[in-house]
Amino acid sequence: MAATLLAQDKKEAAGQMVSAASYVQANFDRFLAELVDWLKIPSISSSSQHKTDVVRAINYGAGLLEKLGFKTETLQTKGHPSLYAEKIVSATAPTVLIYGHLDVQPVDPLDQWKTPPFEPRREGDRLWGRGTADDKGQVMIHFKACETLIKTKGELPVNIKFIVEGEEEIGSPNFEQLVSNYKDKLKSDVALVSDTAMVAENCPTISYATRGLVYFEVSVEGPKIDLHSGQFGGAVLNPALALSQILTAMVDKNGKVTIPGFYKDVANPTAEEKRWFKRAERLQNKELAFVAGVPLAGGEKGKGLIERVWARPTFEVHGLISGFQGEGSKTIIPQRASAKVSVRLVPKQDPAKITNAFKRHVAKLTPKGVKVTVKTFQGGGPAFLENPKTPVFLAAKQALKEVFKTEPYYERCGGSIFAPELFKKVFPATPVVMLGFGLPGENAHAPNEWLSLDNFRRGILTCARYYELLPVALIGTDTNF
Amino acid sequence: MAATLLAQDKKEAAGQMVSAASYVQANFDRFLAELVDWLKIPSISSSSQHKTDVVRAINYGAGLLEKLGFKTETLQTKGHPSLYAEKIVSATAPTVLIYGHLDVQPVDPLDQWKTPPFEPRREGDRLWGRGTADDKGQVMIHFKACETLIKTKGELPVNIKFIVEGEEEIGSPNFEQLVSNYKDKLKSDVALVSDTAMVAENCPTISYATRGLVYFEVSVEGPKIDLHSGQFGGAVLNPALALSQILTAMVDKNGKVTIPGFYKDVANPTAEEKRWFKRAERLQNKELAFVAGVPLAGGEKGKGLIERVWARPTFEVHGLISGFQGEGSKTIIPQRASAKVSVRLVPKQDPAKITNAFKRHVAKLTPKGVKVTVKTFQGGGPAFLENPKTPVFLAAKQALKEVFKTEPYYERCGGSIFAPELFKKVFPATPVVMLGFGLPGENAHAPNEWLSLDNFRRGILTCARYYELLPVALIGTDTNF
Repeated sequence: MAATLLAQDKKEAAGQMVSAASYVQANFDRFLAELVDWLKIPSISSSSQHKTDVVRAINYGAGLLEKLGFKTETLQTKGHPSLYAEKIVSATAPTVLIYGHLDVQPVDPLDQWKTPPFEPRREGDRLWGRGTADDKGQVMIHFKACETLIKTKGELPVNIKFIVEGEEEIGSPNFEQLVSNYKDKLKSDVALVSDTAMVAENCPTISYATRGLVYFEVSVEGPKIDLHSGQFGGAVLNPALALSQILTAMVDKNGKVTIPGFYKDVANPTAEEKRWFKRAERLQNKELAFVAGVPLAGGEKGKGLIERVWARPTFEVHGLISGFQGEGSKTIIPQRASAKVSVRLVPKQDPAKITNAFKRHVAKLTPKGVKVTVKTFQGGGPAFLENPKTPVFLAAKQALKEVFKTEPYYERCGGSIFAPELFKKVFPATPVVMLGFGLPGENAHAPNEWLSLDNFRRGILTCARYYELLPVALIGTDTNF
Repeated sequence: MAATLLAQDKKEAAGQMVSAASYVQANFDRFLAELVDWLKIPSISSSSQHKTDVVRAINYGAGLLEKLGFKTETLQTKGHPSLYAEKIVSATAPTVLIYGHLDVQPVDPLDQWKTPPFEPRREGDRLWGRGTADDKGQVMIHFKACETLIKTKGELPVNIKFIVEGEEEIGSPNFEQLVSNYKDKLKSDVALVSDTAMVAENCPTISYATRGLVYFEVSVEGPKIDLHSGQFGGAVLNPALALSQILTAMVDKNGKVTIPGFYKDVANPTAEEKRWFKRAERLQNKELAFVAGVPLAGGEKGKGLIERVWARPTFEVHGLISGFQGEGSKTIIPQRASAKVSVRLVPKQDPAKITNAFKRHVAKLTPKGVKVTVKTFQGGGPAFLENPKTPVFLAAKQALKEVFKTEPYYERCGGSIFAPELFKKVFPATPVVMLGFGLPGENAHAPNEWLSLDNFRRGILTCARYYELLPVALIGTDTNF
């Protein structure tokens, strides 16, 4: 790599500026090596034993940005800190705030990983490892877009601020406080968020909405000890069965969530959205069915796949545990049973209202003979919906179209990213654009997560081009697009 | 102890035979010490890593019996072996076959044991440890009843055969084959089974029925990997929810099992049984509620507690596992979910028919989008019902009454012991009597299992007295009782 870099520097010194595409190609292996080093840091935010790894990941990212002339800072919170960095090129240039996160999901079940999650491995067009797609790889796209512009054009065309969060994967419990604490620092003309996936391969995608999330642990306590199911079967209510009954009662036979008032604030998609959904329907159907390997039989009956995932709230069970799970058989009535569950929210559903309604519903569903507690998790938050017709969206569309050579898709993201909604709350006038370079099959949150290296490359070029287009877009005219 | 024994031997040598009660009192600490040594062997039959411990437990038991003049033998099976021992005192004396088991239940959750499960500890009237009540302690009662009679009367009043099983706690998968293989060896005039509990403290109990058992693992397979619940929530059917729905549908809102034809062969208790149930109802209510620490809200609505536990079939969930169970939150649609469940059967319900009906029912309840498999476990078997009005039962009643100084209770055991039914099948003319000295609160199959030492003592005296009464009972006249 040193030789390549030297050649690059010589060209630049000679005033022979290369194209962004050439620069990315020439430096691609080094870009990847830097990403791999970052991925090797197991910055799992949900596990207290990885607390220092989140800090190590911040320091590594800061190091990369400092080499590009960014001023960096670690922003402390009550939980994990975040990385802040800025490069102000001109007092009159517009300012872009780029959001991503450097924490990652837990890795269990570990035995299902083909290669260790924190020893990233390149294989053809894919880089495998925890955090490749969600979200270090996508943050690195922006780092390298900055580097590419600086090295090929001499400087950035906009002021850039990075806020790279350290606890997105646990529901951003302290991010609202952080944004509010550093309001002046984080002020910008447009916020970019790269933590989403494209609709399908070769389908560049702009996201303008996310679903919100409230997460619960439902614990059913029965007898004070595990009981012999012969001596007590028929006498004592079975907590594992009671938990099953409560979970079952949360969703009716048409796939509708039964929490009273659950759909009250849910809006139908607009006519234009319906057209967008229709365009993506077949592609997503194929893509999701391929990844899942099962018929797409979830969600509300009578609604299309895209509407169910993008624009409807859902109830999901993430984990169950009760009683005996060992080899062979054991005949007990277990003392307790618990489930981790969540509700995905759509715009206008209020997390606090839904949380209360969920708790009341569980209490109402609790049979006599067991005690049920609902633990709420810090973090979570409402859904987000942006107007996708403003100039900054059209500029994103233009940049994607130039690099991917095809018409971009408009997407509402089924997942939950809290930064967009928080930015909206603190900076109501600042548009938030989501540009994601993941893919539906990337195994985010699962074993064998991966990132398409072609998307990594095109992502860098798209972002670099987008930064160039933003000054025009932010003047307030969209005539160029 | 050596001094006491020596004193004892001297008395015997002098022809001054002591009473059984005095002998038991004088030797009680040694009896306990021998039981403790036996309990220290972790003979968990469900775990393959404890295979040699079952053999060690057999050898230890054999050693004790050999000292009393028994001939012992290890009977091999395809699974764990069993201990056989016999002492034939006379060709004309009746022969008693005594059944118990020396394997024990698993010990998890280990962290709930106040003292380690295989380091038995005496505390007041209780001996704590795995296997104290279920069933090594009860087998030891018979060993020591034999010793007591031999040492105080010079010899046993009946021929005694012991068959102490090595895999009762995994449903006796090879016991039928064993009994059939050793039919001649196991032939007797009466079979005694000590593996049950008394109705309550100071309520000596004769059991004349057990419930049967069929055990299943129900596994729901969904997507081929854990999926991100944002990207796939609403698209893919959640296996943990599907499992909950299947389990929930197994029992209706009145507590009735919904398997088609489930109650077809279930008989109502007789008028006399109803009187017996009524006598035990209040006691058991108090006893079970105390042990469970919750209202006795399980089983079928509209039936009394005793009928529900003693004479009605039930469906129970023993364990649940699915997805994420770690610290914090993880937002996946889990790949799979599974439950360990069983059905307790009452007399005339056919295990094979119920197994097939259960499988068909699960298949019918399986929603589109997941695959469900039902694994059956070897072992299990039908319920057992004996005529409790024959002379051998009356002799048992007499022995209990003499020792406990109160009218014994007649019980149908809610648990499942397969030996009685198997003996009945191979030796239809041989009566089977169940004499149990456990207590409802003994924590069998749970952490902190214990045995009442007063019951251990009275059990020894009862059994010794019962052996003495059996020759008369087996002549076929009950005029003495």
